[in-house]
Amino acid sequence: MLAIHLNAYGDPAENLELVNLPEPSAPGPGEVLIGVEFSPINPADLLLAMGYYALRPTLPSVIGNEGVGIVLAVGDGVTNVKIGDRVVPPLSSFLWRERLVIPAKSLAALPQHADLKQLAMLAVNPVTAALLLSEFRTLKPGDWIVQSAANSGVGRSVIAYAQERGLKTVNIVRREELVAELKAAGGDVVLVDGPDIVERAKASIDNAEIALALDCLSGPATAMLGAILSHGGMLVSYGAMSGAPIALNPGDLIYKALTIRSFFLGHEQYAAKFPALIQQSANLVTAGKLHVPVAATYPLTAIKDAIVHAKRGGKVLLDISGD
Amino acid sequence: MLAIHLNAYGDPAENLELVNLPEPSAPGPGEVLIGVEFSPINPADLLLAMGYYALRPTLPSVIGNEGVGIVLAVGDGVTNVKIGDRVVPPLSSFLWRERLVIPAKSLAALPQHADLKQLAMLAVNPVTAALLLSEFRTLKPGDWIVQSAANSGVGRSVIAYAQERGLKTVNIVRREELVAELKAAGGDVVLVDGPDIVERAKASIDNAEIALALDCLSGPATAMLGAILSHGGMLVSYGAMSGAPIALNPGDLIYKALTIRSFFLGHEQYAAKFPALIQQSANLVTAGKLHVPVAATYPLTAIKDAIVHAKRGGKVLLDISGD
Repeated sequence: MLAIHLNAYGDPAENLELVNLPEPSAPGPGEVLIGVEFSPINPADLLLAMGYYALRPTLPSVIGNEGVGIVLAVGDGVTNVKIGDRVVPPLSSFLWRERLVIPAKSLAALPQHADLKQLAMLAVNPVTAALLLSEFRTLKPGDWIVQSAANSGVGRSVIAYAQERGLKTVNIVRREELVAELKAAGGDVVLVDGPDIVERAKASIDNAEIALALDCLSGPATAMLGAILSHGGMLVSYGAMSGAPIALNPGDLIYKALTIRSFFLGHEQYAAKFPALIQQSANLVTAGKLHVPVAATYPLTAIKDAIVHAKRGGKVLLDISGD
Repeated sequence: MLAIHLNAYGDPAENLELVNLPEPSAPGPGEVLIGVEFSPINPADLLLAMGYYALRPTLPSVIGNEGVGIVLAVGDGVTNVKIGDRVVPPLSSFLWRERLVIPAKSLAALPQHADLKQLAMLAVNPVTAALLLSEFRTLKPGDWIVQSAANSGVGRSVIAYAQERGLKTVNIVRREELVAELKAAGGDVVLVDGPDIVERAKASIDNAEIALALDCLSGPATAMLGAILSHGGMLVSYGAMSGAPIALNPGDLIYKALTIRSFFLGHEQYAAKFPALIQQSANLVTAGKLHVPVAATYPLTAIKDAIVHAKRGGKVLLDISGD
């Protein structure tokens, strides 16, 4: 069967290779055989390939952090899923291959008629968004939050989850053409970064309290969110897409008594919450409340083109079953 | 009586002026007349004069955040202090003047025979140090903490308070000649910043857990402390003496699940704790366990020279009573 191997840590476009691997053996007791259908190329996959991620498998290794698949066979004693069910394997199952055997215990059947590409993106971004809104601050309906990179997969999921919970969002983007789109997706305020963004953000909500900021960019974006937060506010950093160090104005941090925390999906205290959040996110997808635009899909045979596209930007999925 | 007025926000050497003010009136009920003896020039005083501090009095105004004085007269109903007692007025009483009237209620008599210059420095640095060690993490004897600028007034007070509580300190300084001095003052590990400081710091304590870092520098020092902290550690920022933005390696923050908090002595939740901490600090001074070297003293008439010296570095005190 076809698979993608990472042969060395470094430039993923050079070190990811299409290989032909033996078929997995039949599932044993408590296991299932999954046929992978779609798997996105996420920033975390690129970081892993470059060797910058928390996880560094022994090479060569299949990689691929999340995706959706169909149950092709079940081992003895498996009752929670059956052949034909759509499932989202646990994080870091290494899905850039046609088939694999995994334990059944964390799996649950997802809606059969949902958009498979959307289901393929449930395990990282929507789960992250749900946890960002629940693990750091006690928020009640009507409370405001602010986020950078609001058009990202997490950003759009934050908007969807915030709407479900009655929270209001100030969304900062860097391209004017995203404003209408994110407002249509449910963003309460959508602003383009630039001069006076701090003043514009505060004015947009009549200087209401804003107790939580979410940042995956780092660099000046972190400082900007720190300046927008109210006294006693909390900033949660969950990425560093800008490649720059996290920067903060000391006056904001110290005089406003901000707290800076961080979120990493790989920390084990979150793992037990994944199955329920994946189900909840799948329900948002089927209800039309959560949709992340897909820029392109590529077969495994075009892995290098897919990587180049993913590095350029936009959500790129590997279409692994090729249906 | 002589006093120092701040006439405009900007360069303190230009905008601080010796003036002759009327004597304060006699203390009313619950008030005391204080004769100020010594008052340090702290970074917070310079920040206030520059207009960068949280407090911005209407100008012209006397400034001067902390100091020690003697009770010269008491109003009706004052029983907690008597004439001749040494006292530390509350923060921001504006002490760069010979005499002033303040409410008696937060005052307490300090040891009569302690070094007055050391008592003049009790209200900011030792109180800050005590709160840094008690308000953010639950620490038990034997636990390690790490701090930058360990030779500062707060840094030396942290060493003294840590010793009292059985905590162990990794102290980072920038000049080799401070190593022996800070070890003699009770610092468990004292290291000079430079290449491999992170590895040297970890090796110096056999990679023991280090759960709290204290930083008043900001800039690269914050990132250095973030790299030294253990998984789940907390960094408390209480200043930005480098003038640089706070910088952090996102990998440290996110993968190690660090928390960044801040301390500002002016936040009102701390005020009720000051009197007891000032007493406790005075006891450390009289026991010889807390001593901050004084670089020079100047009379009020030499305020401009004093400011120039303070900006160059070293702890400079105004000798206001001139005894």
